[in-house]
Amino acid sequence: MRIEDFKKCQIGECVTQVQVRYYEVDRQNVVHHSNYARYFEIGRTELLRVNGYAYKDLEDCGVMLVVAKLDCRFKYPARYDEIIEIHTRVTRADRARLEHSYTIRHKADGKILAEGSTTLVHVDREGKLQPMPEFLLG
Amino acid sequence: MRIEDFKKCQIGECVTQVQVRYYEVDRQNVVHHSNYARYFEIGRTELLRVNGYAYKDLEDCGVMLVVAKLDCRFKYPARYDEIIEIHTRVTRADRARLEHSYTIRHKADGKILAEGSTTLVHVDREGKLQPMPEFLLG
Amino acid sequence: MRIEDFKKCQIGECVTQVQVRYYEVDRQNVVHHSNYARYFEIGRTELLRVNGYAYKDLEDCGVMLVVAKLDCRFKYPARYDEIIEIHTRVTRADRARLEHSYTIRHKADGKILAEGSTTLVHVDREGKLQPMPEFLLG
Amino acid sequence: MRIEDFKKCQIGECVTQVQVRYYEVDRQNVVHHSNYARYFEIGRTELLRVNGYAYKDLEDCGVMLVVAKLDCRFKYPARYDEIIEIHTRVTRADRARLEHSYTIRHKADGKILAEGSTTLVHVDREGKLQPMPEFLLG
Repeated sequence: MRIEDFKKCQIGECVTQVQVRYYEVDRQNVVHHSNYARYFEIGRTELLRVNGYAYKDLEDCGVMLVVAKLDCRFKYPARYDEIIEIHTRVTRADRARLEHSYTIRHKADGKILAEGSTTLVHVDREGKLQPMPEFLLG
Repeated sequence: MRIEDFKKCQIGECVTQVQVRYYEVDRQNVVHHSNYARYFEIGRTELLRVNGYAYKDLEDCGVMLVVAKLDCRFKYPARYDEIIEIHTRVTRADRARLEHSYTIRHKADGKILAEGSTTLVHVDREGKLQPMPEFLLG
Repeated sequence: MRIEDFKKCQIGECVTQVQVRYYEVDRQNVVHHSNYARYFEIGRTELLRVNGYAYKDLEDCGVMLVVAKLDCRFKYPARYDEIIEIHTRVTRADRARLEHSYTIRHKADGKILAEGSTTLVHVDREGKLQPMPEFLLG
Repeated sequence: MRIEDFKKCQIGECVTQVQVRYYEVDRQNVVHHSNYARYFEIGRTELLRVNGYAYKDLEDCGVMLVVAKLDCRFKYPARYDEIIEIHTRVTRADRARLEHSYTIRHKADGKILAEGSTTLVHVDREGKLQPMPEFLLG
């Protein structure tokens, strides 16, 4: 399949649950902050999936999405074995970039643990900047 | 030793070298972006060390520094086995927060790979917000 | 609750599904071998859970289970986004140790990806060796 | 350069120092056991380097070394910021496999923290088993 044939993404947000794993927690007894970039990645991967695509298929077609910018504000710690929700939303999508915002919440009480955003750009296999594929522009 | 007896940090910046490890690199053949938060952590830990302190000693005294905010702009990918430099600098230090900025460079040619910043706050063992210890205010 | 009051574990094996995450895959395009120790940990945690316990509760009661021995044979690579099954089984449980064996399989075709085992011992909060709690002896 | 032109490895063992990083430590306040597979990898990479080769160059020549077997016995915990020594030694090298043994020690007092071994096999870019290159047979 060619990337030009992918149908437009219709769904702009989703919620994904993950359970905090033992190895993600540090000696302060909270999730190490570096893992939030990984939770964000899981969130936007699942948002793509509810639109019908595995991110793997994009890379197989030569569409590499790379993170050009990331920010995160940490409000409240997540702890081992807690179930958290990754709320992911597309906030901007044009030929130059794809932006997502994320809210990480405790599933149990809805408490906000972290908020962040990422900006993705599209590069080819050689790392050269490319316009964002049409189907991702929603 | 009590944290009140720590002498003031005099040195506001440093450069730390690390070599990219195999497990840090992803299937795009570049360092996975989540590792930059870890490089930043190494950078500010080493900046503390050139000032005479192991961060471990702070935690042993009950001073937990936690990341409240992080941002990073990724300019150019780092690859397996490359030696990179973490340039770390204190950009703000007051009773409420400790801010660092970071520039990640290729050692070989000085090329900028990423730039970012973090804001740390001080909490006690129960996670309650505390004023930043005097000795960290430089 | 005290650990002495925990009811005996009745179930000796279980199957847990996980989906390979992007950051677990290395530049050979396969799951980095260090992640299998983490999959094993997920497997035995879930086996405990189907017996009615969160491992978190054990640690909260002062029961720290630590890995004293681990081995793994890697048969076939797992790849990004594949769903794998962790088949976990208690193979020995006595006052000195708790042994599990693991088989990691592709969910799609049942193919064996890896086989391994771990030996856990029980230490208290100071790291001193303790007899395995009765309820874990099944 | 072609892999056939690589000169034979002459050095069969080496010692590498690493300092335990914050994110490697878990809520038991010790290095998470999955990291030992990563320390072993660092050890054998550095053993290759003292023989004049970067493992990166092997992969660039299409020589992928993959871990077929790993075992580890954990004797004593490593903690945050401690300097540890990875003692790496080739214990067997023939056309079918390359075996290393590892001893992880505290630098400060020489105490043994862990002992393990790995078996590597050589596969090409398509994952097909190949005879071990001559120069690795020492």
